[in-house]
Amino acid sequence: MDVVEFVPGREQYAYTFGGVSPVMRISPGTALRLWSDDAFGGVLRSVEDLSSAKVDLRFVNPQTGPFYVEGAEPGDTLVLHLAALEPARDWGASAAIPFFGGMTSTDRVVTLQEPLPDTTWIYELDRERNTVAFAARHSDHRIELPVSPMLGTVGVAPAGGEVRSSLVPDRFGGNMDTPQMRSGSTVFLGVNVEGAMFSIGDGHYRQGEGEACGTAVEGAMTTTLIVELVKGAAPGWPRIEDDSHIMAVGSSRPMEDSWRIGNAELVHWVGELCGLHPMDAYQLCSQIAEVPVANVVDANYSVVVKAAKTLLPPVEAFGGIHGELRARAGALGSGL
Amino acid sequence: MDVVEFVPGREQYAYTFGGVSPVMRISPGTALRLWSDDAFGGVLRSVEDLSSAKVDLRFVNPQTGPFYVEGAEPGDTLVLHLAALEPARDWGASAAIPFFGGMTSTDRVVTLQEPLPDTTWIYELDRERNTVAFAARHSDHRIELPVSPMLGTVGVAPAGGEVRSSLVPDRFGGNMDTPQMRSGSTVFLGVNVEGAMFSIGDGHYRQGEGEACGTAVEGAMTTTLIVELVKGAAPGWPRIEDDSHIMAVGSSRPMEDSWRIGNAELVHWVGELCGLHPMDAYQLCSQIAEVPVANVVDANYSVVVKAAKTLLPPVEAFGGIHGELRARAGALGSGL
Amino acid sequence: MDVVEFVPGREQYAYTFGGVSPVMRISPGTALRLWSDDAFGGVLRSVEDLSSAKVDLRFVNPQTGPFYVEGAEPGDTLVLHLAALEPARDWGASAAIPFFGGMTSTDRVVTLQEPLPDTTWIYELDRERNTVAFAARHSDHRIELPVSPMLGTVGVAPAGGEVRSSLVPDRFGGNMDTPQMRSGSTVFLGVNVEGAMFSIGDGHYRQGEGEACGTAVEGAMTTTLIVELVKGAAPGWPRIEDDSHIMAVGSSRPMEDSWRIGNAELVHWVGELCGLHPMDAYQLCSQIAEVPVANVVDANYSVVVKAAKTLLPPVEAFGGIHGELRARAGALGSGL
Amino acid sequence: MDVVEFVPGREQYAYTFGGVSPVMRISPGTALRLWSDDAFGGVLRSVEDLSSAKVDLRFVNPQTGPFYVEGAEPGDTLVLHLAALEPARDWGASAAIPFFGGMTSTDRVVTLQEPLPDTTWIYELDRERNTVAFAARHSDHRIELPVSPMLGTVGVAPAGGEVRSSLVPDRFGGNMDTPQMRSGSTVFLGVNVEGAMFSIGDGHYRQGEGEACGTAVEGAMTTTLIVELVKGAAPGWPRIEDDSHIMAVGSSRPMEDSWRIGNAELVHWVGELCGLHPMDAYQLCSQIAEVPVANVVDANYSVVVKAAKTLLPPVEAFGGIHGELRARAGALGSGL
Repeated sequence: MDVVEFVPGREQYAYTFGGVSPVMRISPGTALRLWSDDAFGGVLRSVEDLSSAKVDLRFVNPQTGPFYVEGAEPGDTLVLHLAALEPARDWGASAAIPFFGGMTSTDRVVTLQEPLPDTTWIYELDRERNTVAFAARHSDHRIELPVSPMLGTVGVAPAGGEVRSSLVPDRFGGNMDTPQMRSGSTVFLGVNVEGAMFSIGDGHYRQGEGEACGTAVEGAMTTTLIVELVKGAAPGWPRIEDDSHIMAVGSSRPMEDSWRIGNAELVHWVGELCGLHPMDAYQLCSQIAEVPVANVVDANYSVVVKAAKTLLPPVEAFGGIHGELRARAGALGSGL
Repeated sequence: MDVVEFVPGREQYAYTFGGVSPVMRISPGTALRLWSDDAFGGVLRSVEDLSSAKVDLRFVNPQTGPFYVEGAEPGDTLVLHLAALEPARDWGASAAIPFFGGMTSTDRVVTLQEPLPDTTWIYELDRERNTVAFAARHSDHRIELPVSPMLGTVGVAPAGGEVRSSLVPDRFGGNMDTPQMRSGSTVFLGVNVEGAMFSIGDGHYRQGEGEACGTAVEGAMTTTLIVELVKGAAPGWPRIEDDSHIMAVGSSRPMEDSWRIGNAELVHWVGELCGLHPMDAYQLCSQIAEVPVANVVDANYSVVVKAAKTLLPPVEAFGGIHGELRARAGALGSGL
Repeated sequence: MDVVEFVPGREQYAYTFGGVSPVMRISPGTALRLWSDDAFGGVLRSVEDLSSAKVDLRFVNPQTGPFYVEGAEPGDTLVLHLAALEPARDWGASAAIPFFGGMTSTDRVVTLQEPLPDTTWIYELDRERNTVAFAARHSDHRIELPVSPMLGTVGVAPAGGEVRSSLVPDRFGGNMDTPQMRSGSTVFLGVNVEGAMFSIGDGHYRQGEGEACGTAVEGAMTTTLIVELVKGAAPGWPRIEDDSHIMAVGSSRPMEDSWRIGNAELVHWVGELCGLHPMDAYQLCSQIAEVPVANVVDANYSVVVKAAKTLLPPVEAFGGIHGELRARAGALGSGL
Repeated sequence: MDVVEFVPGREQYAYTFGGVSPVMRISPGTALRLWSDDAFGGVLRSVEDLSSAKVDLRFVNPQTGPFYVEGAEPGDTLVLHLAALEPARDWGASAAIPFFGGMTSTDRVVTLQEPLPDTTWIYELDRERNTVAFAARHSDHRIELPVSPMLGTVGVAPAGGEVRSSLVPDRFGGNMDTPQMRSGSTVFLGVNVEGAMFSIGDGHYRQGEGEACGTAVEGAMTTTLIVELVKGAAPGWPRIEDDSHIMAVGSSRPMEDSWRIGNAELVHWVGELCGLHPMDAYQLCSQIAEVPVANVVDANYSVVVKAAKTLLPPVEAFGGIHGELRARAGALGSGL
């Protein structure tokens, strides 16, 4: 199986889902190895680089893509299997951007208070130990944290002719910022436009749930993924499957609505997979769901609602495609 | 070490935090073995028992307590170590109570729609396999789920002379409904009144995060706990420590405010424990926090924000009392 | 008609709804003239008096009451007609209390930012011109504003044995902080306990909708009101009638839930009064409702949903008691 | 002064803000008389026409426009003075669209309940009496309501290359659904793209605040407006001025965030107009603001925060352009 490599030029960076011409047309079944820049476009390189000086919030989360998937039509299901995520730089950056994040007033949660101090942290990557190093800015503390690579953004073009900023998570996926978007995960997204027009970006070398300060350990990433297409069966909201769980991701405001969306998706999905009446699926999910918050800082807040496969009857989601893609990913060979 | 046993008579059930005379006065250091009835007061015994007929929502979550802790004064920290939680009946019950729960309109999220059908599920306990059995009401599905006992409610009397229903989680603890409230956990609650006046109840044989339908596998419980008191140092919101994590629980509405509360508590706690500047603690927690939702169905929604001890420098919360209580619990002997 | 006067001693101030012994027992039909202190207990007397030094947030909104109404039983409707509200001091005070208000982070909407500067404003009352004077603290601006007296808090003891701080608005009324609570208004509150146990306080010489900074022009008030009782018919949430409108007040979080509550109350009320099917009442209210926000700063946010009587068929709410009380109030004589 | 008339062909209807080519280029100072179809595209013509059968929610609120305004650049302020709004049909329509509206679960406030019954109401217009007639669907009630024409949508192309559905209100204006958008109002919108690209639509013959059921008395409208441009000075969020008030409109979720946005805008605006320190402007607005809810049903909820000019020192917003446009509108002559 061949792997198509793509590294976008800076002039090819996309900052929206929808509204951008494809960088490439690919067929279902294609494996891609994609380089994506970090959320800041790589401009925060030292703790002296402040986001207020260097970052324009209208142009963050540069996307690699979009990719036009041959045969994808509205109502279909785009399937993206993340085979491998590898840090593409030796450092990541995080920042407390003024009036951005969860522990500050923002452009929506408006107050009259002063912003928190604009602060940048640089995390050095130790490839051997597979860690990034938190270095405190106001003391000498230094703490090594495991690298746990994930993608903040995976999305398709929205429905209804909309074009959304790459800061936004919604039905089309986008900036969900969940640690579940990692190597070994298969993502299912409803197709809204011909070709699906998916893109990825916003790599994180690691991120806490909630992404409290608004930014993770942001880093350029090399992502190997396999693209597939299921005709029809478009889910209403993004779904994820990994070896242990099936999951739905809701993104809205307030956060209870994000949860309602994700939970309803999971209830209906479990009901369909298991042949359960909705009330029974509701009851079962009430006793088995795990609900890790994804982000409380973006244009919409995202919540993941997941069910362990071991607590469900044996089921095959989307025809068992996750297992099949796992196998194909394994065959991609070295470097993964 | 002696264990004081207490089984309340039905006339001793308390339905509020605050406003109730103590059932017993105890000294710090006491170990208690407490029986608590289920959230429904034990009236849902078969699937024919409907909550609309049998349950009065003003009198649910009967509390065992309150206990007056000698020496506890406002500003102190009540410490409760949950040594063991054991199902006290051979069945648990769950119900979709009309206009109660997360996938229905409620008395707050009001709509003009009809309620979901009032439905009761009974879970049989298999002590040998340590499972409860989900039995679908609309098909023949039957799924065994691991027993994972927890307490929905642990709380003290509120501040400011308030008295709150045992359906409410807030600063005083209460109906937080988090699966983290399990055997091996140590809970820290700020004391608001002389004697602290804590109570427990609402045992769950298991519960999914979010408690989506509004009720868990509700069951009578025998709880063994050790009571301790730390003078001063009252946390603003409930905190929990177990062998692997330190945690804070925020309870409010909308759910992002619950998260903000819990996250700020964790940031300040980590900052104090590690000697980090608040901005550095904010940054560190942003990259390591785990955020499992507790409930999205009660009078306030609850969110747990936790940090793995392995990702922090070696720290001793509240003077290392969790470890000490772990050891004491181990010495309590058989049956635990 | 006699008017019973009552001025509480400072030791009689109540700081909760529920949990307090009555200051007086009265019969339905009684007219009361009540003095109430301002929200700060009168301690902010000059711009040098800062809330952080002088105000304990656990003891604000001192209530005059509670009054035990003979014959009032759970399920009844307490009727309070506000005949006259008169400023009882020659000045009012307002303050930007640290971490309290709508344009700042709070103990619920938690951030890591610094508080806004603790600032006090004193408004001099000109009884002749019937104005209070806004005097800017950072410039020489001075703006006369019409006096428009209202009560921030009117409430009864809560249901279920709860006791709530006088900072809280909820089903029992309480700290709704709506300018609609003014002379000429009749308030309808569901009775939860024997005697109803109502109290009033938190007089405002004027207040903008939303009460943005958290405090109005707070002032001691002399309130003349007539107490009546309708057996049964308890509304689920507070209702108000004046000469032009019928209104419902919802108080919860997030603010859309406050609106949902108030709107559903109005829809059902209009439906019952006019004999309309709920869907028709829903439609009619959708085209005629006025929705002034009350407060976005208290423990719950309050929203008023109102319908102009001129846009409804002729209706008589609660047997036309508002009109009758209007007439009785007119007969109370001079001083009103 | 000439008035340019424009009636779009159905194929010219726009369903987004942004992403559409202009229907016309105009110079600042131009007066336009625009016909706009109703929110349903005119397909609900009798109570037998159900929204579930006839309306595709991806294509509602057809816009008349966009208009390219010569000289408008990002950072400028587009000024639209609504000189006259005239119903363009003799009937309006309203509908309870399944899973759309404020008293039902929706695609965001998801529950498992059944939808409310899909119902259509037709309002006949009596031009002589200037009324529309509410005709109940489940009884014989018929209530005449004053015509009070307004526009649900007025907006420009969004920033950052986004394209948003005409169902969305946000910084760019859009579907704010406030009754304040009526004849005599002047709207100020920040320009995001060259030419501003504004459009209008979604005429309402009347609407209650909140637009509870999700739809007003929807009707085709003839709107006469004058277009002006102020170089620079772009407000962050939509502002409105009429003869009595200045206003800001916030649109977000949850509704308290909409209020925070609108209130902060008003505070800063009042501060700039009056030369007040932000804390003084905050205090003044706290005592004078009126806060009518606009909508609680759209993709974002909208709240208007307004200040009466009589309670402010004499001020001239945007150089007094509102007064000037009022005069120009008066000179437009008969038919207005």
